[in-house]
Amino acid sequence: MTDDIRLCRTFQTAPAAVPKDDSAKYLVSALTAEGFQAPDWLVPDMEDGTAPNMKAEGLENTIENVPEHDFPGEIWPRVEWSYEDAEYREKGRAQIDRLVAEIGDEIDGVVVPKVGRLEDVRRAAEAVAEAEAEHGYDDGSIGLSIIVETGRARSDLREIAQFGEDSRLTGLVFGPVDYTAELGGRDLGDGRPRWDGLLEAMSNEASAAGLVSIGGPFDDLFKERAGLTYYNADEYADQVEHEARLGLDGSWSLYPKQTIQANTIHMPTPDELERDVSKIERFNEAKREGTGAVTLDGQMVDEATFKNFVNTVEQVCAIHEMRSGQTEEYYDDELLERTLELELSYE
Amino acid sequence: MTDDIRLCRTFQTAPAAVPKDDSAKYLVSALTAEGFQAPDWLVPDMEDGTAPNMKAEGLENTIENVPEHDFPGEIWPRVEWSYEDAEYREKGRAQIDRLVAEIGDEIDGVVVPKVGRLEDVRRAAEAVAEAEAEHGYDDGSIGLSIIVETGRARSDLREIAQFGEDSRLTGLVFGPVDYTAELGGRDLGDGRPRWDGLLEAMSNEASAAGLVSIGGPFDDLFKERAGLTYYNADEYADQVEHEARLGLDGSWSLYPKQTIQANTIHMPTPDELERDVSKIERFNEAKREGTGAVTLDGQMVDEATFKNFVNTVEQVCAIHEMRSGQTEEYYDDELLERTLELELSYE
Amino acid sequence: MTDDIRLCRTFQTAPAAVPKDDSAKYLVSALTAEGFQAPDWLVPDMEDGTAPNMKAEGLENTIENVPEHDFPGEIWPRVEWSYEDAEYREKGRAQIDRLVAEIGDEIDGVVVPKVGRLEDVRRAAEAVAEAEAEHGYDDGSIGLSIIVETGRARSDLREIAQFGEDSRLTGLVFGPVDYTAELGGRDLGDGRPRWDGLLEAMSNEASAAGLVSIGGPFDDLFKERAGLTYYNADEYADQVEHEARLGLDGSWSLYPKQTIQANTIHMPTPDELERDVSKIERFNEAKREGTGAVTLDGQMVDEATFKNFVNTVEQVCAIHEMRSGQTEEYYDDELLERTLELELSYE
Repeated sequence: MTDDIRLCRTFQTAPAAVPKDDSAKYLVSALTAEGFQAPDWLVPDMEDGTAPNMKAEGLENTIENVPEHDFPGEIWPRVEWSYEDAEYREKGRAQIDRLVAEIGDEIDGVVVPKVGRLEDVRRAAEAVAEAEAEHGYDDGSIGLSIIVETGRARSDLREIAQFGEDSRLTGLVFGPVDYTAELGGRDLGDGRPRWDGLLEAMSNEASAAGLVSIGGPFDDLFKERAGLTYYNADEYADQVEHEARLGLDGSWSLYPKQTIQANTIHMPTPDELERDVSKIERFNEAKREGTGAVTLDGQMVDEATFKNFVNTVEQVCAIHEMRSGQTEEYYDDELLERTLELELSYE
Repeated sequence: MTDDIRLCRTFQTAPAAVPKDDSAKYLVSALTAEGFQAPDWLVPDMEDGTAPNMKAEGLENTIENVPEHDFPGEIWPRVEWSYEDAEYREKGRAQIDRLVAEIGDEIDGVVVPKVGRLEDVRRAAEAVAEAEAEHGYDDGSIGLSIIVETGRARSDLREIAQFGEDSRLTGLVFGPVDYTAELGGRDLGDGRPRWDGLLEAMSNEASAAGLVSIGGPFDDLFKERAGLTYYNADEYADQVEHEARLGLDGSWSLYPKQTIQANTIHMPTPDELERDVSKIERFNEAKREGTGAVTLDGQMVDEATFKNFVNTVEQVCAIHEMRSGQTEEYYDDELLERTLELELSYE
Repeated sequence: MTDDIRLCRTFQTAPAAVPKDDSAKYLVSALTAEGFQAPDWLVPDMEDGTAPNMKAEGLENTIENVPEHDFPGEIWPRVEWSYEDAEYREKGRAQIDRLVAEIGDEIDGVVVPKVGRLEDVRRAAEAVAEAEAEHGYDDGSIGLSIIVETGRARSDLREIAQFGEDSRLTGLVFGPVDYTAELGGRDLGDGRPRWDGLLEAMSNEASAAGLVSIGGPFDDLFKERAGLTYYNADEYADQVEHEARLGLDGSWSLYPKQTIQANTIHMPTPDELERDVSKIERFNEAKREGTGAVTLDGQMVDEATFKNFVNTVEQVCAIHEMRSGQTEEYYDDELLERTLELELSYE
């Protein structure tokens, strides 16, 4: 976490075209979502979420609908790609070119899936650079985020992230479904592995290189019990909380209810905020008295602990700047006011 | 997991010589095992499984007995080696030379333990290459698998696996007992650590480089309770299921009952197969109707999810090709037939 | 774990200056601790444990008090540093220079926090080398240990440890509080993440490079229940046991009671020692009969298993050599005698 927080609590993919009378239905629905249903990043999906024979229509839907709505967050279309298949890379290049040509001002970057080792990520970055140059955009104005979902990308993750230190690479997004298929992981009835080592490494490398890190989709949307089908809120929340603990910046949403949950979980809870604001207030008091480490509520607090409390406050300030409706709804007025007025510098 | 599955559900070590009247007893017993007791890979063990003063006899037992039996799987003798002791490397070189000279046609490769960093793995590969050339075998015809059981091999795992992309290196096998000793890990009464980070990395690097990955031995073979000694089936199954979830191709067996368990667990269960075959059938139907992602039994299914179902089916097909007796015994006829006839291409 | 064990069961930081009448109170208290309260490594802390306006006094306290006491373990002052702030590095350089100039004979090395990538660790090592040369000490006589607490240090951990193979770098110490702040990890009410991937990697890389590895501080010192405040012995023990299982050499202590616990947990328990001594005795017997692998108490035991039992015994011997009062207090005479007389060579 840095002082300049790039907010991405939610990375919501919406199929760019679906076989319905209005093929842009889900895309427009996401573009017009309000309150906690509006994702921080909206991803019009021309890849796996859209059927092979509707991808061209998905591209047109994206080009047509994105400019028509004043979406309050970032727009990151997902194109096709494959480290192991030149045909998919050609499709991706054409989609990137079209998107930059037509709506380069409206998008923050593109999401490229199924990248392989570092050289393939460089290749994807070059495809964006070419479109950018071709259509007269400043170098680096169109970002690149990648889905980490192959053994090769995981193997090169450190070098890929370091490439992001001074390039357009912006975000690392986990793709557990393809990843599990590549590794031959099994669901023995209790779901796929969580791939904890990968998540921890992704959080670390993103942090070391100043990138955004985002968890993977949760596809068990519904459960059935005793004849009733219901939305699986619990297990999704478990996953998002796990990602939040590990320092991922945000979570993937496939569905408006998931967006509400991920937006909320990636905000400090009122209890967490009260706890950390209170500790900052008391630690500031101790500092004025010249004390190094102090014990607050049984916890030994020093400069390092202090930074964790500051993170909580800065996250709330960043959300408040972008989406004040959410902070005002979620926290009571007095706590929010104390948060916004807090003295955060240590010395 | 790739389309060309190299079957190694079980990596069974058998001591090449034991202090009994018939010193080849366990080796012959493994060479003649039938049904689910026959391992996919049989490893005549001239290293830790055989006493120091019987290793020469173990080599002779291997040379004499392997050609006499028509073992249905692969044969991978384990020789001596040590990254930190030239004397053991000399012993290993001599054993490799003798094995290739005498039964080079009968073995698929050799297993080299206690390798260190990449350069030591290269050294082991060169020892095999020399024996191969000396005795007139084609380059690459004798494979190499290594036991990952030192801090150095774990540290260089990514580079070692990449070396395997275009070399005779075939398999990465975990050696938790030596590994725990090297790191100074402790058993505080509840067993050694599982080394989850290493297992996940091994599955990933093997997948990225197209290698086979195999879990480590489980040595708590028997338990005692209320005066009774019984085979510890439960804990071994727990370990093998954990390895299967993480995408390891197979598990190490020390004992015929373990071989039965590992062979079985690395086959999809009938429930798992029914679940995935049924989802492929229904997803194929949805594809014909031009749908990208669909919801099946509450799960959102797209191309990525589809690949996981295909893995289940391809594993059954691969086992059926090598060991049709096992698939015919484990699945009912109708399910096996649906499996073998399934349309697996996505587009 | 190597044959030459460098004992560091406990890495106790003591604030070098506190706002009390006797500002060296805690430092002197640690320097004079006895029995299980005496840490193996004592770390006079001029960094986060001492308030910004007292750091100069902390340095003087260290220079004055360390030579006055015959501390039985190692002395490793922690200085200031930051990979991202030259001002802190200048402070650190000045502190290192002063410490080496004044008490270079009394300290074993310095602890440098908040290092970044490999080049920053090299920079810290050079700062020590300069002070060493300036004040006439032999090259390498003053060691360096680092706190691993940034995304960059974790990212370069393998290369940093390899640098330690032939340099003054001696120890890798985890700093979870700063680390969690850097990654933006969250405490959702059940504590910070344990960062298991990092701990496992640290144990591995330290082992591969022959370094010492030490866990991070546990700051939830006290708990409250029903009006009572009590020392949180249970959770600290859980953390230290977890670190011991993973093969870390020692644990961080913030408090004398923690030192007692960590010193004790990093000794084999009497049950563990009895178990492993007994298995060595029986395995030695089997070796004399020419057996490779044998089954003892249901466990298959071979040369690799044997090494783990030897580790238990060697740790006790190393502690006995440094702190015979502790071994004599903790183990009964007969068990300790069997331990010290054991035949440990395998062949």
